[in-house]
Amino acid sequence: MNFSSKLLENAVAEFAKLPGVGQKTALRLVLHLLKQDKAEVEQFSHAVSKLRNEIQFCKTCYNISDQAVCEICASHKRDQSLVCIVEDTRDVMAIENTNQYNGVYHVLGGLISPMDGVGPADLEVDSLVERLKESEAKEIIFALSATMEGDTTIFYLDKRLKQFNLKLSTIARGIAFGGELEYVDEITLGRSITTRVPYENSLSR
Amino acid sequence: MNFSSKLLENAVAEFAKLPGVGQKTALRLVLHLLKQDKAEVEQFSHAVSKLRNEIQFCKTCYNISDQAVCEICASHKRDQSLVCIVEDTRDVMAIENTNQYNGVYHVLGGLISPMDGVGPADLEVDSLVERLKESEAKEIIFALSATMEGDTTIFYLDKRLKQFNLKLSTIARGIAFGGELEYVDEITLGRSITTRVPYENSLSR
Repeated sequence: MNFSSKLLENAVAEFAKLPGVGQKTALRLVLHLLKQDKAEVEQFSHAVSKLRNEIQFCKTCYNISDQAVCEICASHKRDQSLVCIVEDTRDVMAIENTNQYNGVYHVLGGLISPMDGVGPADLEVDSLVERLKESEAKEIIFALSATMEGDTTIFYLDKRLKQFNLKLSTIARGIAFGGELEYVDEITLGRSITTRVPYENSLSR
Repeated sequence: MNFSSKLLENAVAEFAKLPGVGQKTALRLVLHLLKQDKAEVEQFSHAVSKLRNEIQFCKTCYNISDQAVCEICASHKRDQSLVCIVEDTRDVMAIENTNQYNGVYHVLGGLISPMDGVGPADLEVDSLVERLKESEAKEIIFALSATMEGDTTIFYLDKRLKQFNLKLSTIARGIAFGGELEYVDEITLGRSITTRVPYENSLSR
């Protein structure tokens, strides 16, 4: 694209670096910002810069937090013996939204993915092992995506966590509520039959 | 959504103000930025802030420019007697990309749209009238979107520009190159028949 201004070109190039944003979308976003008040654009740019410079990660669970220890880890109402391993803060938000979980979390910050050059050292694995040495944790729940990367990560963590006397579990995989049987893929459907649950359990939501 | 950090929430809220960006997309973009180097995020935020604060609009055509008069208006190679009226800088870029136009532009900065509260006073209409009083312009080309707003704007400008002895034209509407006849809508197809061009003209691209 031939831009009439270097400033415009720079801003578009920066936006186009964001995931899922191409040159045309970037231009549309930048032109939108240009139409806003200076104060509003300053607020946008300030929020981004402040976020990156002042963000903290909870020392215990490595979730994004404004304090050194996040609200969930600091809460006395949460069951500290139950630790749920998730990929990132979005998963914490999703699980919190269900109102079905009362334990604490550990945010890995990604999944093991050799294709993308992400190994265990890039994730909060060592910190998890250190944490478990001194914690009162009794059960670990793996709440990771049902993908190759998720399974690889669970496999690796399973080996690392064997030294502790912990119950390890993964979140249930099966047919989603509202899902129609004929559209479910074979692997999920097959697994949902072999890992069937007693009828009474399926009713207690 | 329940955010674990106020900083995160603010940044997501700012991103979600952008057109076509919802809360989930905003969160994805913000988490992407969080994984980047501080310097890179600073560069992003700086580019946005600098753009809004230092951007200039060409005094003649009101296109985005780094100088007081843009390259196109200042060029001696461009035909100053031909003025193409467009909505915004994206249209200038699109027309420039065709390499088929050698005149100059006038960027309105929008289209008349009573539904959105945009009237002629919000656009660069008065500046166009002032410009034409002193210019050597002979022909005005309306290159506006083929929408209700575009047509309304052309209708209004036509009345305002009647005082000058100018040839007024609009860009041709018809079937796009590569378009299949059976999928073209009735209005376009009907109009393309009534405004048919001699065969020889259609060959000279």
